[in-house]
Amino acid sequence: MYHIITIGREFGSGGREIGKRLAEELGYAYYDKEIISAIAERSQLAEDYVNQVVESQIRTYYPITVGVSMTAAPEDGVYAINRSIFAAQTEILEELAQKSDCVIVGRCADHILAQHKPFRVYVYADMAFKMARCRARGEDGDGLSDRELEKRIRAVDKARAQYYRFYTGESHDDRLTYDLGINTSSIAIPDAVAVIAALARAQK
Amino acid sequence: MYHIITIGREFGSGGREIGKRLAEELGYAYYDKEIISAIAERSQLAEDYVNQVVESQIRTYYPITVGVSMTAAPEDGVYAINRSIFAAQTEILEELAQKSDCVIVGRCADHILAQHKPFRVYVYADMAFKMARCRARGEDGDGLSDRELEKRIRAVDKARAQYYRFYTGESHDDRLTYDLGINTSSIAIPDAVAVIAALARAQK
Repeated sequence: MYHIITIGREFGSGGREIGKRLAEELGYAYYDKEIISAIAERSQLAEDYVNQVVESQIRTYYPITVGVSMTAAPEDGVYAINRSIFAAQTEILEELAQKSDCVIVGRCADHILAQHKPFRVYVYADMAFKMARCRARGEDGDGLSDRELEKRIRAVDKARAQYYRFYTGESHDDRLTYDLGINTSSIAIPDAVAVIAALARAQK
Repeated sequence: MYHIITIGREFGSGGREIGKRLAEELGYAYYDKEIISAIAERSQLAEDYVNQVVESQIRTYYPITVGVSMTAAPEDGVYAINRSIFAAQTEILEELAQKSDCVIVGRCADHILAQHKPFRVYVYADMAFKMARCRARGEDGDGLSDRELEKRIRAVDKARAQYYRFYTGESHDDRLTYDLGINTSSIAIPDAVAVIAALARAQK
């Protein structure tokens, strides 16, 4: 069985950077946005639409389709389409888990791959850290005010939490959903990477 | 400024063992039950009573005193006595923080010593792990049934959470109250100690 590390994260906390660096450090495959493209291909839905569903929220309107047919027929409604996206995601994650050791960011991978006993990391930070990081990385839109940026960060996190709860019935507010919680407001990213790598090596 | 590591923990999760081993590993002072004795001495209340207050719950009845006088006069009520115990605890923790590098288990030390910027660890585990650990360590009373043991673990954790919330206005359900969360159901105690020690060395 391959070793799988899943990384859940708050928006702006640096979880994705930790995932990338960790995969490099360990020589593991790294999966993040690639999964979206694969889902889009398999479900024959527009990549942008899949991205909105997977990244952000349960959609309540119909997608613009690009493919010839949809896995879920329109009459089944948006709910069925979302379900079919989740089904494709589950299928893809299972395939990846059987290919090599890997680091997977987001995508409810901790829950979907539970039977593979992944090492589940959750990365979070206080609002000041997340705002500063978004600004430094130019992820603050066109110069949002502090108030607007904070609102945006909260909205993304809320949408992710809703998505996670909808499909898994769980919440990262329950610490038992992760094995290691890392607060990047106080733990530097290189230190976080070193620590997760050490634990991964110990567990493997 | 000395380096302080605080360890909050669920009952049966191994937080105390991690704290002890960590202090040995780093050559830091270790404080746990000693603090109770010091509070008892300073507040002139019976050690057992202080222990009940600090370990378990906000008491609603009067203590049996052992000392000549009490910091809080009886007419101020139990509330004032609890407050005076917390004041003594605060005073003692501040003194310890100014003496040497140290590891402190429990006692709201993360909150009380916030200005010292402690490295705040929270240790938790799933119920099956905590029950097995309690049994292995003979902390299961006189052979409690599984149901009784689980009830006891939940009661201790609930009382600790109430105590923490009462005095700090916060809850460990908020992950921002800790820098590192360690789930001992999946991370072995020696690995946890190694990881905290590495982060402590990186931060010092």
